[in-house]
Amino acid sequence: MKQVKGGVTAPKGFKATGVDAGIKNNTKKDMAMIYSDAPCSVGGTFTTNLVKAAPVKWDSKVVYETKSAQAVIVNSGVANACTGEEGYGYCVEMAKETAALLKIPYETVLVASTGVIGKQLPMDSIKKGISMMPDKLGSTLEDGTLAAEAIMTTDTVSKETAVEITIGGKTVTIGGMCKGSGMIHPNMATMLCFVTTDAAIESGLLLQTVQEIVADTFNMISVDGDTSTNDTLVVLANGLSGAPKITKDSGDYQVFYEALYHILEELSKKIAGDGEGATCLFEAQTIHAKTKEQAKILSKSVITSSLTKAAIFGHDANWGRILCAMGYSGADFEPELVDIYFESEAGKLKIVENGCATDYSEAKATEILSEKHVKAILDIKQGDAHATAYGCDLTFDYVKINADYRS
Amino acid sequence: MKQVKGGVTAPKGFKATGVDAGIKNNTKKDMAMIYSDAPCSVGGTFTTNLVKAAPVKWDSKVVYETKSAQAVIVNSGVANACTGEEGYGYCVEMAKETAALLKIPYETVLVASTGVIGKQLPMDSIKKGISMMPDKLGSTLEDGTLAAEAIMTTDTVSKETAVEITIGGKTVTIGGMCKGSGMIHPNMATMLCFVTTDAAIESGLLLQTVQEIVADTFNMISVDGDTSTNDTLVVLANGLSGAPKITKDSGDYQVFYEALYHILEELSKKIAGDGEGATCLFEAQTIHAKTKEQAKILSKSVITSSLTKAAIFGHDANWGRILCAMGYSGADFEPELVDIYFESEAGKLKIVENGCATDYSEAKATEILSEKHVKAILDIKQGDAHATAYGCDLTFDYVKINADYRS
Repeated sequence: MKQVKGGVTAPKGFKATGVDAGIKNNTKKDMAMIYSDAPCSVGGTFTTNLVKAAPVKWDSKVVYETKSAQAVIVNSGVANACTGEEGYGYCVEMAKETAALLKIPYETVLVASTGVIGKQLPMDSIKKGISMMPDKLGSTLEDGTLAAEAIMTTDTVSKETAVEITIGGKTVTIGGMCKGSGMIHPNMATMLCFVTTDAAIESGLLLQTVQEIVADTFNMISVDGDTSTNDTLVVLANGLSGAPKITKDSGDYQVFYEALYHILEELSKKIAGDGEGATCLFEAQTIHAKTKEQAKILSKSVITSSLTKAAIFGHDANWGRILCAMGYSGADFEPELVDIYFESEAGKLKIVENGCATDYSEAKATEILSEKHVKAILDIKQGDAHATAYGCDLTFDYVKINADYRS
Repeated sequence: MKQVKGGVTAPKGFKATGVDAGIKNNTKKDMAMIYSDAPCSVGGTFTTNLVKAAPVKWDSKVVYETKSAQAVIVNSGVANACTGEEGYGYCVEMAKETAALLKIPYETVLVASTGVIGKQLPMDSIKKGISMMPDKLGSTLEDGTLAAEAIMTTDTVSKETAVEITIGGKTVTIGGMCKGSGMIHPNMATMLCFVTTDAAIESGLLLQTVQEIVADTFNMISVDGDTSTNDTLVVLANGLSGAPKITKDSGDYQVFYEALYHILEELSKKIAGDGEGATCLFEAQTIHAKTKEQAKILSKSVITSSLTKAAIFGHDANWGRILCAMGYSGADFEPELVDIYFESEAGKLKIVENGCATDYSEAKATEILSEKHVKAILDIKQGDAHATAYGCDLTFDYVKINADYRS
């Protein structure tokens, strides 16, 4: 597996672009399009929130019923959530307008929206944006970046990654882009992730693979514990690499699995580290757990604890909050057995041994916690399973971003 | 039921005081004592956190095994949590020192600590504090207030309340004090609540009553979602009112139940409204639910949503976040049926009807949300059950209080 430059246009046969359609009250890009030269197998996962945005309902049909997709149309600025039948109609209209211009069936167009909840889409701007994009579609890495930039809301950086693997002597590429814990002045943290690959793999196997990997990557991140109405992750595979088809029993499957895992892990870490107002990526790894499920519950409880997140912002080795968050997680463990370490580029320090404080240096702990990527290791000494969750610190800027008036 | 002045010393036969024992790095009071002239029936509930502070372990024995108590000794500044066997030994020592001076069995002394986790108690200061208090114990309302002030940490106001009821022609009083979502620069939000009454009621019935009421009051508040290691709530009943003994089948039971419910509801609202950094009490009431459990889950999900809490701080009628928090709560309901209202002293406004925005005035909504006590009413139109949860807004000060370095 080789890390390469680019995002959704890195694999063969994918084009993309991003434009300013005038949806947002500024001059930033707000619409993106991805197009594949050939119909794609498709896999995806969507929000588990009972309140689902219109595009989530539409995309679920594409992924679970059509099982094939050839284009993606995305807008930022308005989430098209809590918009009733009118909103769903606009979503289908987005698919139809896009399909007509690209001359593909509208059932194969994935739609995504992110931004303010409860507002109807400004369809004039949307249609203008859609009409601008087919001519601009391009296959360079820069075209991919235009798309990645157009889906940003309060993200501070665009998020792309790509890798190459070899299958049957052919180079297969996987590329992805996502947007995270941003809000449109201010609304739901809405996660969108689009991954493209020129691998050949059937939709059924792709879906199963995506769901398995998402459980360990995207479902292990949290910025504020609020599960969005719009969360969407889709993987498109167009098979244009010329590599043999990947089947579950082939040795190639493991190679593809690891590459896709890497892409989704990288993208999910980018989202956590760029959480609203965040100054650092905060990772909690539970080791020596009885089961992976137990390790996941403990790790996730720590990275979602407001008190722990505020302490990380203050570079404060407040381990009592970590042990407390483990204690109320619902997972069974022995508090008296727990060791806790802090680790970052500045070093590694054992803070707690068997449930009580070690004689550690507060100065060294603060030094470790002052880095951009901070890790807490929770050794519960019960078995061989482990799991990691990714979050960020809780800062003044998180409150500022989310307390401001809409308008 | 009549609201009266005072707290734990309002009922007959209870004395209290609070002193500065030098535990905290300031000149504020940090130890409190409550004493009853007669042995008391006792009921209580404690943290469900797997990591339990030493005093929680000790008090559980008093409530579930001794089933009788005559005094309470409390310190603020150090939580005596994650302190191992040494810490438990100090806790028992606190009970023994107090018992010796008050000439009562040490198994009837309840102990509570609140403050920094992981530090051992400064036993010299603790013993000094205990020795100061028996001579100062008094039965005036001011003596009760001294105790209420001594258990504060980052609380901004002391919290007391009392009511009178009539049972068998006799006046029965219930009084209480609590401390809430404060931290000792900075540590666990640690809730402590002590209620006294001169009613005559057996420990078994008292315990059952307390647990039933706590499920609807204290267990429905949240400041930051972090369940403390030290949460303790105990009710002491000394029977000195001279009123007949309350039994489950007597008509008096309902009178007592409602009065105790009122006391616990008032105290829990005081804690929520004085949450760390809070500028307002934020209440979510779900109405027309199928079951009370469903109503509780929905109400609690709304008041614990960081995004919703930040919007309330910004006086922003961001109802999308409320509907979103209902959607991921795990409770089943029909998003398309939901009506949402905002209510406060400034008025009441329907914001959402059948899952979509009404044509409401943003200015009026902001006016309503600018009050000190703000309520969201969630009408899910499915049945007759209802439940209310109490929280507060998420503010810059919450982050500031919890990000500061310990020291």
